[in-house]
Amino acid sequence: MSQLPNTRPELLAGVDVGGTKIAVLVVDGQGQVCGHTSTPTPLNSPESTLDGIVTAIRRGLVAAHASLSDLGAVGVGIPGRVDTQTGVVRLAVNLRWQEMPAGAQLGAALGVPCFLENDVRLGALGLQRHPDYAHIQDLAYISIGTGIAAGLILNGRLYRGAHGMAGEVGHMIIDPAGPRCACGLHGCLEALTAGPAIARLGQQAITAGADTQLRHYQPVTAAAVYQAARAGDAVAQAIATQTGRYLAYALQQLVMAYDMERVVVGGGVARAGDPFLQPILEELARLRQDSALARELLPAEKFHLLPPDFDAGTWGAVALASQGLRRTSHAIGVI
Amino acid sequence: MSQLPNTRPELLAGVDVGGTKIAVLVVDGQGQVCGHTSTPTPLNSPESTLDGIVTAIRRGLVAAHASLSDLGAVGVGIPGRVDTQTGVVRLAVNLRWQEMPAGAQLGAALGVPCFLENDVRLGALGLQRHPDYAHIQDLAYISIGTGIAAGLILNGRLYRGAHGMAGEVGHMIIDPAGPRCACGLHGCLEALTAGPAIARLGQQAITAGADTQLRHYQPVTAAAVYQAARAGDAVAQAIATQTGRYLAYALQQLVMAYDMERVVVGGGVARAGDPFLQPILEELARLRQDSALARELLPAEKFHLLPPDFDAGTWGAVALASQGLRRTSHAIGVI
Repeated sequence: MSQLPNTRPELLAGVDVGGTKIAVLVVDGQGQVCGHTSTPTPLNSPESTLDGIVTAIRRGLVAAHASLSDLGAVGVGIPGRVDTQTGVVRLAVNLRWQEMPAGAQLGAALGVPCFLENDVRLGALGLQRHPDYAHIQDLAYISIGTGIAAGLILNGRLYRGAHGMAGEVGHMIIDPAGPRCACGLHGCLEALTAGPAIARLGQQAITAGADTQLRHYQPVTAAAVYQAARAGDAVAQAIATQTGRYLAYALQQLVMAYDMERVVVGGGVARAGDPFLQPILEELARLRQDSALARELLPAEKFHLLPPDFDAGTWGAVALASQGLRRTSHAIGVI
Repeated sequence: MSQLPNTRPELLAGVDVGGTKIAVLVVDGQGQVCGHTSTPTPLNSPESTLDGIVTAIRRGLVAAHASLSDLGAVGVGIPGRVDTQTGVVRLAVNLRWQEMPAGAQLGAALGVPCFLENDVRLGALGLQRHPDYAHIQDLAYISIGTGIAAGLILNGRLYRGAHGMAGEVGHMIIDPAGPRCACGLHGCLEALTAGPAIARLGQQAITAGADTQLRHYQPVTAAAVYQAARAGDAVAQAIATQTGRYLAYALQQLVMAYDMERVVVGGGVARAGDPFLQPILEELARLRQDSALARELLPAEKFHLLPPDFDAGTWGAVALASQGLRRTSHAIGVI
């Protein structure tokens, strides 16, 4: 029996839903970019956020000079915990979503399969679409922002863990005597080095009467701390150094246990660039001085900042859509 | 073309080479035990150790009422770093082996393919042959003895890492202010909780004039510390508590990052049993009190001692032999 030419819609949309904006990337079947957009995230109600995602995807299609009928599948990265099988978002604090059947609702609104996954995991998956990382089989992508989490590629595939909870590196206890974390534990990496923790250290320095430019920032943010550090402020530099040391220990632990080939750090805090990365690299250099094992497993070139011009999240969402579509097509016999 | 009946030899030998003994397990093609033996490890020279392995395998075959001609393949666990592709042992300190082409030499001496792997990794692989663990897709086996290392089963398969170095959990920095480790770093898990570290804490307590039964042990060993702890010695119990706390943090970090379904702890130190395990479980219980995330990811039933009657190392070596034989048969066209 002869085969009809493939007339299925070819476009894929990758969506990264953040607490402030929804980024959409539309690509064709060959992975060529057709359009991308970024729109503010409506947060008036859980439903308004869902509507906002639909609107953002429609705008992405317009930017790609296409329409819904050209769309084959959608992948969506959610900042929270996702049941990837059912498309139900268990909990996404920033979106005020709890047990939200977003996959089904988006699918009904758009008329195409919509696949959901945690946004940081999609960041890791997205790196596989970047020429510098496409060949890497074992990679960790660590996002440091308001929270801290990791996406893990092991043996070339996204690793989700026994209960879909792999990557909760923000809650690795780094210093049991450290401050209490939102999760209830003490001294979690997140309580020591996420954005709010860095901002708090800055605020504490001001309150303690330290001589620092940070008093000119209201409120003090992690970005302000790194800006002041870059400008030579000693107090801000000390905070950056302490933060970098804790992060270096966390990276050391991850690499010793899992021998990743590459560790990529992204997220809002990491966007500070050099003043953020250098203290981490300096602590790792100290470890290398002490130890042949550290020299072997912790070379400076293993640790990268996420390339600022690369949107790993939406590329990962595109990859998710593509994988999901292949699985679905297979399941229903479409070729 | 008709197929000849399968006349290949069916027996597999799994060998676990330790610093004191060589254990051999011989099984048939259905995985039934045909015999097992344990012989002291000759350590006069690297060559004598290699000869000792050959002798141990021959004895294992005798115990199985079989001979070399019945043997299909051998798997060997080595306490050190192994190039699994070439069968060269890069470094095995306890055997005084360095760049030893043990796979080729054993293969030549025995006339069958010999596959080598790190012994702790084979411990993890061996657990897949135990009814309690056979169904588990994500598992860590942690061996705590003179050193500390882990074997990792992720997505049902042995995970080796980008450079075959995954599992160096003994060198995760747990307390940067801790004592110097043999690797050069400070406060590695191994420097805090391996056998020599526990023994040193006992010795230090005696030297400091503490009131403890440990002064009756010469020398003080980790086993002595746990024996005294079991007998109610407060100094030994304090050492066990501190060790358990550090181990609990290491396990917490591993589980948060990788969401393993089960963590099995074995090795010489863990053989102390309850006095070893209880302090770990108590610290984990404290973490659960503080945190819903800890309650979800760190339930007590996730953490097991290696069943004392199960030789995970030789079962893992048998599994390695079986896998290796299948791959080799495939490669050379044997069915």
